[in-house]
This record gives sequence, structure tokens and C-alpha cells, in this order.
Amino acid sequence: MISKALLKNIKTLELKKFRKESGLFVAEGSKTVIDLMNAGMKAEKLIATEEWISSHRITQNVEIITASEEEIKRASFLRTPQGVICIFRQPVFEIDMTAAQSNLSLALDNVQDPGNLGTIIRIADWFGIEDIYCSIGCADAYSPKTIQATMGAIGRVRVHYVNLEEFISSLKGKIPVYGTFLDGDDIYSTTLTPNGLIVMGNEGNGISDGCASLITERLLIPNFPTGRKTSESLNVSTATAIVCSEFRRRMK
Amino acid sequence: MISKALLKNIKTLELKKFRKESGLFVAEGSKTVIDLMNAGMKAEKLIATEEWISSHRITQNVEIITASEEEIKRASFLRTPQGVICIFRQPVFEIDMTAAQSNLSLALDNVQDPGNLGTIIRIADWFGIEDIYCSIGCADAYSPKTIQATMGAIGRVRVHYVNLEEFISSLKGKIPVYGTFLDGDDIYSTTLTPNGLIVMGNEGNGISDGCASLITERLLIPNFPTGRKTSESLNVSTATAIVCSEFRRRMK
Repeated sequence: MISKALLKNIKTLELKKFRKESGLFVAEGSKTVIDLMNAGMKAEKLIATEEWISSHRITQNVEIITASEEEIKRASFLRTPQGVICIFRQPVFEIDMTAAQSNLSLALDNVQDPGNLGTIIRIADWFGIEDIYCSIGCADAYSPKTIQATMGAIGRVRVHYVNLEEFISSLKGKIPVYGTFLDGDDIYSTTLTPNGLIVMGNEGNGISDGCASLITERLLIPNFPTGRKTSESLNVSTATAIVCSEFRRRMK
Repeated sequence: MISKALLKNIKTLELKKFRKESGLFVAEGSKTVIDLMNAGMKAEKLIATEEWISSHRITQNVEIITASEEEIKRASFLRTPQGVICIFRQPVFEIDMTAAQSNLSLALDNVQDPGNLGTIIRIADWFGIEDIYCSIGCADAYSPKTIQATMGAIGRVRVHYVNLEEFISSLKGKIPVYGTFLDGDDIYSTTLTPNGLIVMGNEGNGISDGCASLITERLLIPNFPTGRKTSESLNVSTATAIVCSEFRRRMK
């Protein structure tokens, strides 16, 4: 049974303030919950129907609370609850500057939409990008909508919140810093390195002036046919997908 | 002033049933509304604040209704209304089988999420794909969420609803029919043609068996490093972006 206190606890975790204070977050759905446990994220409380519990192998030593579908529906953030809700502890990662210099990583400058952030985390996972450096103004990686959109990838990608300008400055001159601009060089024919930092900007305003001034390689995703009247830009997660794909294509 | 009847009329257009009956849809926000008018979509009623009307050039002969911000807020489908709401007539397109054979086009097999559909329409616009063939079960291209996500691209891409299996069958043998599968051929090193049909599948289930059996070229977007344990798939709009980018890269 879900006690009143637990229900309230889950509900508060929809808000960033309470996630920050408690260091906890909520994940829902079999795939996401199982993926996060397998990835080693610390589960604190698992709330599920009897049916769910009997049909899934729970790989962590976690407090299990059996609940009815009705109770789960009340606690869920989803329109279509999926039989399992799990409270996890947010992992804390130290930034590894050696990794930042030798790997390909993403930096997000004020990406606001939780769905976009989640989709970008999933893209990073697919393309073996292990670290994402988010500006403080980015959406929270542990909001229910972001977690949902990552489809479990949040367990395999490290998301760091940093003063992004300072962070990029600390790498400048050591590795290429890439960004996409409408007046950049055609990404398909520009040299792309196996290491570096790819900066992606805000949904409405793109990359901020402060970060833009630190970018050493300006890239363009050309539209087709080039110069045709078209949308003025691509959605940030769409652009991230195309850029990451092109970097990885070169490394085959 | 927005009359009660008009307010009700706008609200009903959130539902597919009423959009279908009336052949109308609602678009909001300066960029989208202006883009659709410039693209030649027939505007029926434009509802905007005095300030908006005085600061924008309206290029169509349309009934203009002045409203207060408060009224627009009541009528809007958005959390942050943007000063303008416009009722448009849904365009009707005939399918041009010659174009379908000579161009690169997209086919969507039960793409359910309106946001994904809108993002895919925006991607098509960017990459000069003029026709999207949707199965009857796809999300509605004229739902407010889809329109919002297209950012005006819905005015430049023709979306057709068809019996997708029949449609693909009618093209089989005439052009390559592409689809992405986890056991397909590496898209980066496979021959891609300048014309053809790219089939993208449902968010949870991928391409249906019926459509899959009609696909002649099975593609894979490889993860990195190949074979690493990662997300099991990419979001459908993410995958569409990568596939379209790779087709267009080859045509430079």
C-alpha cells in the first residue's frame, strides 16, 4: 500500500526544488526502471503491482512496496501508468578533465525543454558519448519528463551541471570546440576530430554570445537544396542527432 | 472581441473529430501564422491583439478579430499564448505518382506522437522532402501539438493520409523502398539513391509486418562503438533526422 506520506513524497519529486533538496528522483515504466537498476543507479523504493513484482527480476536490494493499479495511477506522473514507479538516488559525478580532453562530449547551453534534454541523452547513449555538460540554466535531467524521454539512457550517460562558459574556457586550446551556426562550414565536408566538445544551444536563441565566442569550429547542417527557402532551423535534439551521427560516421 | 460561439469553435478544433468535420485547424504564434499565410494556406479567421495587428503585415484577405490578451489566453491551446491565433483551412492535396517516383519522400507507419510528427515535418522541410505519406493510424498533422512542432513547416510540406501498404505496393519495383532495422545494412556505407521512399515506424513497435515485407532496402543506423550495450533504439524523429541527413549528404 502507498501511504499518504509516500504519495506526498512522490508528488513533491515532480518539482526540481524537492528533487534538489532530497537528491532523489522518480522513474516509471518497466524498461526505464530495470535499465536504471542494471546500470547501477541506487533504487530507494520500488512501488509496483503484485503482478509486476512477480514477473520481473529485481537486481537490487531495495525496499519493495506492493500497490494496486489504482494507487499507482494516483501516484504516477504519466497519463498511462505502467505498473511500476521507482524512487532513485541521483548519482553524483566528478568531472574527469582527462576524459573531457580525450573523448567526444556534448555541452548544452540553456536547453530548456525536458523532452529535448531527454532525447539528447538518448542520442548521446546511442553514439557512445559518455558525458554531457549542461549549463546551470538547462532543464533538469532528473525531471519526470526528461527521465521518460531518455528511455533508460540516463543510467549510461553522465550529466554534469557546470558554469558552461568557465568549463569551455578551461578546455579551449586543448581540444576543438564545435558549434552549429547558420553561417558555419558544411559539416559534411569539414574535418571532424574523434575528440572534442560539441556545444548545442537554446531552443529559441541558439548558442549564447558568451559560449559562441569560445567556439573554435563553426559547423553548418546544410539544408537541401542548399539555399532553398525552408525552416529557419532544426529542433535542437534533431540537430544534435545529425551532428553526432556525422562525427561517428567519420570514426568508422 | 472573441464571441462565445467563436471561443467554442476554436476549442472544438483541439479535437480531431471536429477538425475533420470542418476541414479547419488552429495555428498560434507569429512565426507559424505568418509562415502559413506566406505559404498560401487559406486563413479563415485571424484573432490577435491590437498590438500584434499593428506590428505585423497580414498578407491575406482574412477576417480579423481584435481581442484582449486575456481573451486570447482563454482561447489558446498554449501555456504561454503568443498574441495571435489563426483558423486555417486544411489544404487538400492530390497524390502525384510521378513525383512519388522521381523524388525522395517519407512514409510514416503509425507514428503516434503529435510532437514527433511535427518534428518530422520540420525535418522534411529542411531537407527538401516535399511529400510525407502517413498511414491512417498516424497522429493528425493538423492537431495543435503537431502544428506547433512544425514551426511553420506544415505550410511547405504536403502530408497525405493513405492506406500505406497499398501505397507502398503501388511503388514497389519502381523505386527503392527504404526502412531502418536493427539488422539492416550500415547506412553510412550502403548505396542510397536520390529518389525513393523512406518508411519510418511506430514509436513502440517500429515498422508493421505488412509494411516491412514491402521494404527493399533494409538500413541500420549503427551505434558507437558498434555492438556496445546502449539504448535499444532511437526516437523515431531522431532516426528520421539521421536518415534524411545521410541521404542528402550523398546528393551534394
